Amino acid sequence: MKASQLFTKTTKNAPANETARNAQLLIQAGFIHKEMAGVYAFLPLGLKVIENIKTIIREEMNAIGGQELIMTSLQAREKWEVTTRWNDDVVDVWFKTKLKDGTEIGLGWTHEEPIIEMMKPFISSYKDLPVNVYQFQTKLRNELRSKSGIMRGREFFMNDMYTASIDATQHDKIYNGVMDAYVRVFERLGLGDDTYVTFASGGSFTKFSHEFQTVCETGEDIIYIHRKKNIAINEEVLDDETLQKLGITRDELEKVKSSEVANIFNFGTDKSEQMDLTYTDEKGDKKFVHLGSYGIGVSRLMGVIAEKLADDKGLVWPAQIAPAKVYLARLSEDVEVVKASDKLYDDMRKRGIEVFYDDRDVRAGQKFADADLMGIPYRIVVSEKTCQSGKHELKARTESDNKMLDNDGILEYLATVGS
Amino acid sequence: MKASQLFTKTTKNAPANETARNAQLLIQAGFIHKEMAGVYAFLPLGLKVIENIKTIIREEMNAIGGQELIMTSLQAREKWEVTTRWNDDVVDVWFKTKLKDGTEIGLGWTHEEPIIEMMKPFISSYKDLPVNVYQFQTKLRNELRSKSGIMRGREFFMNDMYTASIDATQHDKIYNGVMDAYVRVFERLGLGDDTYVTFASGGSFTKFSHEFQTVCETGEDIIYIHRKKNIAINEEVLDDETLQKLGITRDELEKVKSSEVANIFNFGTDKSEQMDLTYTDEKGDKKFVHLGSYGIGVSRLMGVIAEKLADDKGLVWPAQIAPAKVYLARLSEDVEVVKASDKLYDDMRKRGIEVFYDDRDVRAGQKFADADLMGIPYRIVVSEKTCQSGKHELKARTESDNKMLDNDGILEYLATVGS
Repeated sequence: MKASQLFTKTTKNAPANETARNAQLLIQAGFIHKEMAGVYAFLPLGLKVIENIKTIIREEMNAIGGQELIMTSLQAREKWEVTTRWNDDVVDVWFKTKLKDGTEIGLGWTHEEPIIEMMKPFISSYKDLPVNVYQFQTKLRNELRSKSGIMRGREFFMNDMYTASIDATQHDKIYNGVMDAYVRVFERLGLGDDTYVTFASGGSFTKFSHEFQTVCETGEDIIYIHRKKNIAINEEVLDDETLQKLGITRDELEKVKSSEVANIFNFGTDKSEQMDLTYTDEKGDKKFVHLGSYGIGVSRLMGVIAEKLADDKGLVWPAQIAPAKVYLARLSEDVEVVKASDKLYDDMRKRGIEVFYDDRDVRAGQKFADADLMGIPYRIVVSEKTCQSGKHELKARTESDNKMLDNDGILEYLATVGS
Repeated sequence: MKASQLFTKTTKNAPANETARNAQLLIQAGFIHKEMAGVYAFLPLGLKVIENIKTIIREEMNAIGGQELIMTSLQAREKWEVTTRWNDDVVDVWFKTKLKDGTEIGLGWTHEEPIIEMMKPFISSYKDLPVNVYQFQTKLRNELRSKSGIMRGREFFMNDMYTASIDATQHDKIYNGVMDAYVRVFERLGLGDDTYVTFASGGSFTKFSHEFQTVCETGEDIIYIHRKKNIAINEEVLDDETLQKLGITRDELEKVKSSEVANIFNFGTDKSEQMDLTYTDEKGDKKFVHLGSYGIGVSRLMGVIAEKLADDKGLVWPAQIAPAKVYLARLSEDVEVVKASDKLYDDMRKRGIEVFYDDRDVRAGQKFADADLMGIPYRIVVSEKTCQSGKHELKARTESDNKMLDNDGILEYLATVGS
């Protein structure tokens, strides 16, 4: 990608109508555009980060046998009335609208009811189970307030997975498999050390549900982490009974602010009883299906990573989700400099390295500031001086020391670092 | 993909509540699920077709310098009031809803107004132009009726591109480039011969807009095609003036039913004048930006292809968008047959050939019927008989003759046909 062709531009000044640091930086760097509070468009650089996060999640969901599909935003009232969740007093984040004939319909804020309905024609026998399906879907939630940038949106990207099993034993096995897949996702996103499996309040079927909480100063939650055991307890279930159950004491816990990046629910047979999702077992008896629901906040994760890793110069992306791995800053319009830069650009691309090539005729200071603000992991500087020496300057976004390397040295170095 | 693991199943009976053949077949084959009239979820096989279509479009849009981004479903009233398009009497397909504080908001049925607004911070000088951006977005349109399956949905997938230029000359060049890209898309989708650039009514700025219409018996439009010139005229602009302008006579035209699979609009400076999108030219003068808007109906295309190519046995997908290239039907649970089938499955996958492996323990007739209904381009049969001879049966979906080929022969043959 060449800077001269990129539609967006960076801006020095933080937007006046944003208090959340993630939104401020992402708007300044040209990654997102605010439509209204809690509603953001994703510009080319921002969409790249989203797609990179989705790729990691998709690989892990496929690895545990998940099948991708996509459900709808428009939701029929009838399905939700069965579980009482159509009622605005029960669910307070519905956006509702009307068809031309006056029929009231809703906009999907989650997709449990429709997925259960969709499973009905495909599940009749125990041989049809287990089922494991997932989607990447835009969720619409009518939040009262929305001041956290892309960390809590009214319109946001989510990955949600739904599993159906014959019984608690099969369910538990799948549930643990999804937990492990989630752990791998957060490790691959560079959040492994700071993301805790957190015990939270369960539904009627289980005492606990599980959340994945990432330690983050601007998060909306408070959790109590147990570093040694690598678990945490949500404030809402922190009592003596929980502590005893987990075999820990109150003084081993550390109170931190966090953001809920994923959650997992075991519905047991509650929802399939409500909605009549059954199968016939080996003996020919009718049984209710065991259901699980699992969600990762895709755009929220982007916001959390932006908040957590940013420094005073701007964003800092882990290489695996950055919009480009290298920011190639050409500091002169001199023929030799252009030639050397173009060659390096082509060589890197041939090796599959994503490069953002700053080929604009602007001051060096502007290029360095943009490279930092955009948070690209590696910056390479090609100038008249580096061309004369035959060695260009390579610097990691998070380090202050440079390396001076020739063309081949740069390619070799980049092959050894990150993905 | 293995049939035994696929979440969906085929069904013999056409759904009672569908009159459109595309929806009937796609539901029977397990590609889509009806949520309500005009609103369909895309199941794993259906999503694969959608993603394959999107890949072709994305490649062509990137090739002409398009930059991908994604806008939002939730739309603020203010932007649309400027162009009068918030008014339900002007635009009759709005879905509208309300924030908690009572603010009325809309759901995106197109994205011209928001993209113009979004361009403002990034366009100030002639050096910032041209701009060419596109998205794949779920559009929500409150259609009065919706009985054409995925050929006219209330919720559907669209690829929309927007261009901004300094003047009519630059605009025309880009406009023609998009037209050429669209032609390539339809060729790659196998619709080249039956898709006509069609002259339709323009806005205030141009006499004509251009549509791409695909000849289709169940289409909602009527066009007059000129086979020799490879153009068509929409009923609404068929008059002597148009005929004269295009240098054709009425008796050279053939009246056909068609479906509008894409359209292109030249807005000139109309919309940028309304919304005040300007740039400064080389002389320092303020000028209005020239705008173009271009859209391809992604899910509609899937419906049109389903309608057009289907035969009495079911769907027929072109290889480049089929959910798999090969349907591998294993006709026995015998150890040798399983071994041979597994080997063929692995060999094909290693070569990057997408295979749907029917490893279920069901009758051969069921497997053949499913292969036909799902419309997979090639079917391979492995049975005790074919294992004994060392040659398995390969048949194209649209042919009745078989080929008998050994393992290597199959791999070689598949490498030569389609993509």
